[in-house]
Amino acid sequence: MREVAVVGIGSTRFGRLPDAITRLGAAAARDALFDAGISASHVEVAYCGYSLTGLISGQECGAGQLTLRDVGIVGIPVTRVENACSSGSCAFREAWMAVSSGAYDVALALGMEKMTDCETSRAMEVLSCASDTQLESSQGLTFPGVFGMIARRHSYEFGTTREQIAAVAIKNHRYGAANPKAHFQMEIGLEDVLASRMVADPLRLLDCGPMSDGAAAAVLVSANRLKSLTNARPVWVASSAQTSGSYDARAPITGFDLTVRAAKQAYERAGIGPENIDLAEVHDCFTIAEIIHSEDLGFCQKGEGGRLVESGATEVTGKIPINVSGGLKAKGHPVGATGLGQIAEIVAQLRGGAGPRQVPQARTGLAHCMGGFFHADAASVVIHVLRV
Amino acid sequence: MREVAVVGIGSTRFGRLPDAITRLGAAAARDALFDAGISASHVEVAYCGYSLTGLISGQECGAGQLTLRDVGIVGIPVTRVENACSSGSCAFREAWMAVSSGAYDVALALGMEKMTDCETSRAMEVLSCASDTQLESSQGLTFPGVFGMIARRHSYEFGTTREQIAAVAIKNHRYGAANPKAHFQMEIGLEDVLASRMVADPLRLLDCGPMSDGAAAAVLVSANRLKSLTNARPVWVASSAQTSGSYDARAPITGFDLTVRAAKQAYERAGIGPENIDLAEVHDCFTIAEIIHSEDLGFCQKGEGGRLVESGATEVTGKIPINVSGGLKAKGHPVGATGLGQIAEIVAQLRGGAGPRQVPQARTGLAHCMGGFFHADAASVVIHVLRV
Repeated sequence: MREVAVVGIGSTRFGRLPDAITRLGAAAARDALFDAGISASHVEVAYCGYSLTGLISGQECGAGQLTLRDVGIVGIPVTRVENACSSGSCAFREAWMAVSSGAYDVALALGMEKMTDCETSRAMEVLSCASDTQLESSQGLTFPGVFGMIARRHSYEFGTTREQIAAVAIKNHRYGAANPKAHFQMEIGLEDVLASRMVADPLRLLDCGPMSDGAAAAVLVSANRLKSLTNARPVWVASSAQTSGSYDARAPITGFDLTVRAAKQAYERAGIGPENIDLAEVHDCFTIAEIIHSEDLGFCQKGEGGRLVESGATEVTGKIPINVSGGLKAKGHPVGATGLGQIAEIVAQLRGGAGPRQVPQARTGLAHCMGGFFHADAASVVIHVLRV
Repeated sequence: MREVAVVGIGSTRFGRLPDAITRLGAAAARDALFDAGISASHVEVAYCGYSLTGLISGQECGAGQLTLRDVGIVGIPVTRVENACSSGSCAFREAWMAVSSGAYDVALALGMEKMTDCETSRAMEVLSCASDTQLESSQGLTFPGVFGMIARRHSYEFGTTREQIAAVAIKNHRYGAANPKAHFQMEIGLEDVLASRMVADPLRLLDCGPMSDGAAAAVLVSANRLKSLTNARPVWVASSAQTSGSYDARAPITGFDLTVRAAKQAYERAGIGPENIDLAEVHDCFTIAEIIHSEDLGFCQKGEGGRLVESGATEVTGKIPINVSGGLKAKGHPVGATGLGQIAEIVAQLRGGAGPRQVPQARTGLAHCMGGFFHADAASVVIHVLRV
């Protein structure tokens, strides 16, 4: 397999945005091309991740082609990749595969979603289509419900406190406030979290990621085409790993076995361990999720995630900065765009261009995205390790 | 890039079927594994193509994981690939890419769709989501309307007759009647076509592909893993090509430039020309489509497609047998499954196992699938050349 570099990133602001999904996607794609210093005609293949837009807007098929036409990218293979909340990460992964295979030298990975074009109740119904509609969502088992149960069990088993769980929201909102692309640019305190509306006990409104619109993109190039194409500083894809759940109903719900397995693959392929990761973007769709993922990714022992965030270790100056973009929680969660938003953040950090959120001496970063939830397990976890 | 072989194929019958999409997909996947002589644990990565099921059943996300769990395939990367009516072909292509890249040795490509779980009017509305919902389907420009206009123009420019267009339906129904997996297993005559209900002048009901349920699958293996894995006779992927439309509104509507471009790539990469193709499965969503694709694939001159089918050249004993499976027209069109159904037919033919539909001395076959329709052009064309 050939070495692949990211040479361009682009992203809209995430949030409740007035533009159509194709406008958002085109803006992110244009930014990524401009950042890479290449033109539309250089792109040889494109993968577009979106998940729920069809159910919301009706444009189920071909939104990638319609979007890229506005950027002047026509004729080339454009393929939609979908894996619930990990759709954008899967688009990046397929783009990486297309270049590493030798089939193409220059690929565009695009993620986009338009979640706010409907009532919140409809958005909830649409999100429930990422669980088993026959066995789970039809029973009322929505995502807040799932993660509420997980939070209760984590507290019971490991003594994780309400304050530790809230610390994730407080931290991520603080970084969101320092990120001009974030959905929420306001700091919050413990009292705000505890006073917010109960959603699924013990999770309150400020424990939950928002419905966001947005798009993000990345340009990937083969090592041998790099120098002739662009002067952009490359960020290398050290490894790409993807897993699905094992549907083991007896497995503990306080961890995600498929994150553990994907992380093992990602570390092995990159020839490193979790101690070598300088910063991570993890899938904090709910506050408790960040705590659990930080354990499953090996940043602390199982059960120690609450104490990890409380200790300050996941702050920008800590041992393992996590979600210093603001994360899904504050940066926002436009489903198909989320995974590519993580890639954009890691690349910006590894280039030293993250401004007030810059992690000192960041040379290796990890992006972790999770999609779907089936029978006490997730449908998809995708991990990428990037480095300079 | 590494050489990749197809070693197993599977398919349900296509038609109006009682089973849920996950049952259909699992049956096809199981058949493909059995045909390859391998077990579920050998599969390292899976791609699942489906397009419109989310809009019909609500299971937008993760249907691939839910399906493969029933086959005992868990834990591995499972990614949905979507590109309207070419979704199954794109799933096959990504599986080919994953193996040719060296990332995996054994891949499963699965395509499935459940179209009949709703009223026909809703199915039409859902299918219109494969055009530009803002500019096209909102104006009433449905697929029958598009192909009706194309048929009129083709007749005007090239003298294509009503009888020649009907000959496609008559031929494909005759082969469908010889294919136990086909949706329609009844022969029809010219008078049946001409007496059938008008849909979009000049296209009548028997000029139109049906709404079908079904699933099809293929197992792909790297050349170096082949001998240690299975005794199955390999069918090699000689080339894979994919294009999108160029949105050139001035282009003639009597041909698909993106088929021409994809065919050129597919032939070049395989080191052959159209004269070397022993049989082809082409995307006959409407009768006129087969005529046009047979021209754009180089099986005859532009404008000669009507005379080609009339001459008998596309029969099983003709110069270039086309859609001897019955095609979308008679075999059926379960959107996401269609492309993999074509692969299954080509593989069966190249192995010499197609029974009464067997093309003599078939050594090289071509599968052509088209998805979506935007602004006088298609959204996606995927071509695979297979050979023994």
